[in-house]
Amino acid sequence: MLTLFHHPFSPASRFVRLILTEYGAKSELVIERPWERRREFLLLNPAGSVPVLQENDGPPVCGVFAIMEYLDETRGYAVGNRRLMPDHPDARAETRRLVDWAVNKLDQEVVGPFVRERVYKQEMPNSSGGGAPDSTALRAARANIRHHMRYFGYLAASRNWLAGSRLGFADFAVAAELSCADYLGEVPWEDEQNVKTWYARIKSRPSFRPLLSEKVRGMPPAASYEDLDF
Amino acid sequence: MLTLFHHPFSPASRFVRLILTEYGAKSELVIERPWERRREFLLLNPAGSVPVLQENDGPPVCGVFAIMEYLDETRGYAVGNRRLMPDHPDARAETRRLVDWAVNKLDQEVVGPFVRERVYKQEMPNSSGGGAPDSTALRAARANIRHHMRYFGYLAASRNWLAGSRLGFADFAVAAELSCADYLGEVPWEDEQNVKTWYARIKSRPSFRPLLSEKVRGMPPAASYEDLDF
Repeated sequence: MLTLFHHPFSPASRFVRLILTEYGAKSELVIERPWERRREFLLLNPAGSVPVLQENDGPPVCGVFAIMEYLDETRGYAVGNRRLMPDHPDARAETRRLVDWAVNKLDQEVVGPFVRERVYKQEMPNSSGGGAPDSTALRAARANIRHHMRYFGYLAASRNWLAGSRLGFADFAVAAELSCADYLGEVPWEDEQNVKTWYARIKSRPSFRPLLSEKVRGMPPAASYEDLDF
Repeated sequence: MLTLFHHPFSPASRFVRLILTEYGAKSELVIERPWERRREFLLLNPAGSVPVLQENDGPPVCGVFAIMEYLDETRGYAVGNRRLMPDHPDARAETRRLVDWAVNKLDQEVVGPFVRERVYKQEMPNSSGGGAPDSTALRAARANIRHHMRYFGYLAASRNWLAGSRLGFADFAVAAELSCADYLGEVPWEDEQNVKTWYARIKSRPSFRPLLSEKVRGMPPAASYEDLDF
């Protein structure tokens, strides 16, 4: 039995939910609000961040890098050609580079600020940093996303999937990040048709459905968020 | 033939230099100043960051996560029991959690600000963000390092090495980060004797020697930096 401690709007948690489903690994989902610094959760992950995966009463697997590799090491063989990590070391390096790009660079420069300013700050009490969004941070994120979209557009135009010829972890990591920005209507899809086409292919996978049906209270998603032909 | 694009004061680059030596993988070192955004380097790594490893004319391996796994996948078998990644998926997850802690959390909250404010800003032209250190950022880093030291002290007291019973990637990732702060005299070693003892063991390894002999122009290291019995 797998338990995933996550937050619905944490892009890294979304990535893990997607790949758990792709690997056919059923898990119980527990919502964690990292800013509450719940004691039992800090014992699992002293970093205090989501996602954290736990198998039965085993040791916690903390963070996307550890979880992605753990999932592939423990279930990769069983999923056969639906495996999301390629075999060759060069291709594995390219997959990891793009996952790192998504969960660190894209997250820090774009999606993290969007989610923090527009979602978390509404949920958090003022004592934990809640309050009105910082318009300077939002402006920077809106400028930065264009550079990232251009790069993903280049990748999508020159490859079948982002990291190479086959669907892989990198596609889900980037899509998970973009899905959070998309909920908020912050993705300039029309600038990059190749990214839009690639995202439409990912978004139509059954693993994406649970994410698309979730709503933030008092904040309906952008018009095209659930639409598979956006 | 391996080529490593690095910066002497990039903690992540230091981590890679250490593990390359530990794996007996000789490499040519090329110093890269990421803020120069050199065109040929951006073609290798569009993220513009170090470290980047290249094997012969093969595709670049970008970032610590990709490089660490690549090194273990391509050379791990050959080093036998000196391998720095354990075999069991649970232990691998713990190794990756702590590497992630070092190169992301410790770097963002502590070592990154120290290096940026006290080293990079001296090297950078003003047009790239150079100038005087930001004392608020330094104060925050000095407060944050105490929390990290306490946590590493807990790990060092309860385990033989940071991630478990054997020396591994996590030890080198944390030591590489701390070595940059130590050069600047910013590590409160006396607060945590267990961390000090652990670091003395790592620091005395031959792989650490090249790092200890490097100097930043116009900025001598703290008195105990090179001292193995500090």
